[in-house]
Amino acid sequence: MADNTQIILRERPSGKLQESHFELRHAPMPVPGDGQALVRSVLLSQDAANRAWMQGATYKDAVNPGDVMHGYALGEVVESRASGLAPGDLVMGELGWQEYAALDARVLGRCSDHRPLTHQLSVLGIAGKTAYHGLLNVAGIESGETLLVSAAAGSVGTLVGQIGKIRGAHVVGVAGGPEKCAWVVDTLGFDACIDYKGEELPAALGQHCPRGVDVYFDNTGGPILQAALFAMNLHGRVACCGAVSMYDGGPLTGPVGVPGLLVVKRIRMEGFIVMDFADRDAEATRDLSAWAADGSLTVVEDVIDGLENAPRGLIGLLAGENRGKRMIRVGPDPS
Amino acid sequence: MADNTQIILRERPSGKLQESHFELRHAPMPVPGDGQALVRSVLLSQDAANRAWMQGATYKDAVNPGDVMHGYALGEVVESRASGLAPGDLVMGELGWQEYAALDARVLGRCSDHRPLTHQLSVLGIAGKTAYHGLLNVAGIESGETLLVSAAAGSVGTLVGQIGKIRGAHVVGVAGGPEKCAWVVDTLGFDACIDYKGEELPAALGQHCPRGVDVYFDNTGGPILQAALFAMNLHGRVACCGAVSMYDGGPLTGPVGVPGLLVVKRIRMEGFIVMDFADRDAEATRDLSAWAADGSLTVVEDVIDGLENAPRGLIGLLAGENRGKRMIRVGPDPS
Repeated sequence: MADNTQIILRERPSGKLQESHFELRHAPMPVPGDGQALVRSVLLSQDAANRAWMQGATYKDAVNPGDVMHGYALGEVVESRASGLAPGDLVMGELGWQEYAALDARVLGRCSDHRPLTHQLSVLGIAGKTAYHGLLNVAGIESGETLLVSAAAGSVGTLVGQIGKIRGAHVVGVAGGPEKCAWVVDTLGFDACIDYKGEELPAALGQHCPRGVDVYFDNTGGPILQAALFAMNLHGRVACCGAVSMYDGGPLTGPVGVPGLLVVKRIRMEGFIVMDFADRDAEATRDLSAWAADGSLTVVEDVIDGLENAPRGLIGLLAGENRGKRMIRVGPDPS
Repeated sequence: MADNTQIILRERPSGKLQESHFELRHAPMPVPGDGQALVRSVLLSQDAANRAWMQGATYKDAVNPGDVMHGYALGEVVESRASGLAPGDLVMGELGWQEYAALDARVLGRCSDHRPLTHQLSVLGIAGKTAYHGLLNVAGIESGETLLVSAAAGSVGTLVGQIGKIRGAHVVGVAGGPEKCAWVVDTLGFDACIDYKGEELPAALGQHCPRGVDVYFDNTGGPILQAALFAMNLHGRVACCGAVSMYDGGPLTGPVGVPGLLVVKRIRMEGFIVMDFADRDAEATRDLSAWAADGSLTVVEDVIDGLENAPRGLIGLLAGENRGKRMIRVGPDPS
């Protein structure tokens, strides 16, 4: 415990993110102040939004060159100068890409003792709640409706499609590459999955969504959003969850037909952030736990060992190499 | 009554609409069949959407070259072969740009005997209901919120802003030209009006909407929508009513930042058509009548005499020359 390994954003990327934008650094062990706890990081979440944070302020402050890269992680309290937190407690928060962080107790959330701990970053974490609230509380889905999900093999998409199936929808995914698409159908039970790299989207949407699209859960923006808008039914809903196609040097142009198509088809597009639904998280946790326990949800996790692999992990995630929830194991589970 | 004057769409416009795209024709008087009524047109509504209809199917069939130009009008039954309709009855429907139409009774709506009849096309007609439902039932507006309205001097915009004031909002319009903007403030009581032809939108929005924009009522799409999205507050709502900037040969590109801005700011954009709210029209009619009667709504109408002036009227409307609800007087009020 002589030092604290950290990964720094060395330079703000202007195009595609590369390993050279990061730098590994050894810093002194942080010392908790009054009201703070020293937390050892166990599992670090990796999310497409991490890339968006580098571009400027979003729903949180920007990551600036020289900063320890921001990241949400689960950790164990090893020292506490805050009432209500004791060594051994499991917490979640913005620990960043580092082994240890000293943070105010008020910015740390208490974790449940649910095991495996990885579930607390996947099906019971932000990914699961994002899928749940976005599909059920933002878009809404009825039995028999057609649900289209982009980034279908990703942390959120894998869950959105499965929740759609649980609710009786016809579920079509969009993912990159024939193997990933086959896996989405065979392992996750989607009705179909369109390979946006190999298929013409409009024709494929016509084939796999013969009754049109009622709900589009958008993780990508860009050309997939564009094609989806043309395929939407009257009174269709678009849950805008993310825009991964635009985070990593992609084009920023908006979809043709906004707002004209929205008017003609009476489409509702709505952006959301999972934190806005905190008052309904108990319901999400209850349902997601039950579905995971009875096997109606297949929980897919993609855990990479070692903090030093975090840059490579995020770059790969932005290129779509992950299946399910990607996270970095920074240290061992507490005993 | 020897013949029926009609205006035909001669050619589908590819850029700006011009008078040469139309042709005046004298056709034989139509003869009502079983279940039909012969209707004499009195007042013909002119709407930006008329131009969109020429481009292809929207929420209704396209107008095709050779067709009598489509249009919604108020008229008087002069002959009836339909039960429930008698000569002298006032009706509304898709009479088209012509003096007489023979139509099925089921596509004709009965009018009230409210006078002046012009109100039935303005504050109590589609314009009024569009403003009412779009602001109150699609976007929603709370006292103290900031409401931005484009095409603020138009048929819908004049009413949206005034309803916003009635509900206690800070109301900022966008219109073309300093005279029109001054009129919007002085006559209609908006708090401010931005001249999009003469002012830089982002700076003007910053000046006149110091607390950001909570609701944007979008009649235009295009650059005004773009600027509005950047000025929106968290959880802002955009009621997508029309896209007049795009109907008449304008650019079709969508706004930069869709969907990214929608996610970051949790913005809801929703397209609507007034017909979707028919089940709540009674409430709209009650409130709009009361507000017009007690003077809290200034009803602005722009009535042009003579069917032959309909092409010029629509062209002028698309160029923004009207103030308030433009309509064509095709014939005298029934006695």
